[in-house]
Amino acid sequence: MTVARQILETHPVGTDIDADALIRCIEECVSCAQSCTACADACLAEESVAHLRRCITLCNDCADICNTTGRVVSRVTDLDREVARAALEACASSCRVCGAECGVHAKMGMKHCEVCEESCRRCEQACRDLITVL
Amino acid sequence: MTVARQILETHPVGTDIDADALIRCIEECVSCAQSCTACADACLAEESVAHLRRCITLCNDCADICNTTGRVVSRVTDLDREVARAALEACASSCRVCGAECGVHAKMGMKHCEVCEESCRRCEQACRDLITVL
Amino acid sequence: MTVARQILETHPVGTDIDADALIRCIEECVSCAQSCTACADACLAEESVAHLRRCITLCNDCADICNTTGRVVSRVTDLDREVARAALEACASSCRVCGAECGVHAKMGMKHCEVCEESCRRCEQACRDLITVL
Amino acid sequence: MTVARQILETHPVGTDIDADALIRCIEECVSCAQSCTACADACLAEESVAHLRRCITLCNDCADICNTTGRVVSRVTDLDREVARAALEACASSCRVCGAECGVHAKMGMKHCEVCEESCRRCEQACRDLITVL
Repeated sequence: MTVARQILETHPVGTDIDADALIRCIEECVSCAQSCTACADACLAEESVAHLRRCITLCNDCADICNTTGRVVSRVTDLDREVARAALEACASSCRVCGAECGVHAKMGMKHCEVCEESCRRCEQACRDLITVL
Repeated sequence: MTVARQILETHPVGTDIDADALIRCIEECVSCAQSCTACADACLAEESVAHLRRCITLCNDCADICNTTGRVVSRVTDLDREVARAALEACASSCRVCGAECGVHAKMGMKHCEVCEESCRRCEQACRDLITVL
Repeated sequence: MTVARQILETHPVGTDIDADALIRCIEECVSCAQSCTACADACLAEESVAHLRRCITLCNDCADICNTTGRVVSRVTDLDREVARAALEACASSCRVCGAECGVHAKMGMKHCEVCEESCRRCEQACRDLITVL
Repeated sequence: MTVARQILETHPVGTDIDADALIRCIEECVSCAQSCTACADACLAEESVAHLRRCITLCNDCADICNTTGRVVSRVTDLDREVARAALEACASSCRVCGAECGVHAKMGMKHCEVCEESCRRCEQACRDLITVL
């Protein structure tokens, strides 16, 4: 059992939000935030860095947005659905745009962008799935 | 001249986004993030902490969202309008909800909530103003 | 293979830092940051919240410090050993203090504090291990 | 009066830490975090980006560390001196290293690095000053 699930299951009040959707979203946000930070760093190290500016900017933005969204949905005590939904929508948008940009570079052989693209797509889906059950 | 304006004015490429709206938004996000962190802490120290749980959660969420939004709009190189708009909309929502909650406690005499309410309202407005010129 | 390892292994330049110690540290920082955010939230929901103020403050601090440290050591391109070491030392200190405080409440039956204590202890160790090979 | 000072002065319990040193540190951390985020972005937009990798990495690290440190010292309720000191020391180190790197590029005419260097130096000093009165 993951740490996110263990803490949620021992929460004194709990939540009426679907636990599987919530935990999957938390974990994808946390993982995608790290993936985007590391991909921005790997892009910066590429010889072709001058062609990767947009990718670096989008990865840095996505890392911040995923990180914040993972925190917002981890705070289930008095979770405000309007705030959570707005954060999740921003996160899904950011993951979609960043994943698409990484996808372009993945097709040209950049393996770190391929890994990051997959993280973004999983996180986008997890955010959209959580929105539907919120 | 503020640091945010000085760095924007010396950016090698610059941006076609209205500089005044952009800088005001950056500065309100940064200021509101600190205000919300400090207000959550002050609420936690109140004797009536058990009645302030929702305020603490909203302040912590708003601190994270403002902080992330201030970073996203500070990255003007290849700023993506869809991502920026999504972040700004989440920030405006969060500031509106958090400001309203702080407003309830401000009316009951909590001065830190009054200061934080005003920060939230200014930040919400600055985000909405930037969205209109994006 | 985890996402952190996949991206590190596809980094265009790589790093001479021990990959196992680095990846373990990144993953423990990321996991502990989430654990501390969720534990602060669970403490806030407890009836005995007034006795948990110190735990909430330490968890919030630890979440921020772990998050930042995980980012700093994820940026291996031109990783600066002095900066990384300072961040890792702050993270180890914060995890030690926060883990000890959670340990007090764990002994009194708070299960979320028990989970968080274990996260803090693993993260502290991973930071100290990385410092020794930096 | 700044927002940081207004909230500190209306804190229900307050702190025995010197308020001027504390507020100056909070404000320099917050300002330096934004400055470093914006400088990393401006460096990324430079034609000579391939020579600015170390500066970008250090600015991104410093933005995260300043941001976290500003939050840690904003949480005065049960502020833990060991944790605060460790964060402040990491922040002072990061500001020193990042400020020195920006200083190299400032001498070569990069105005955004000159502004960021000054932010880093002010923040480093504010952190060191707060450590001495902690």
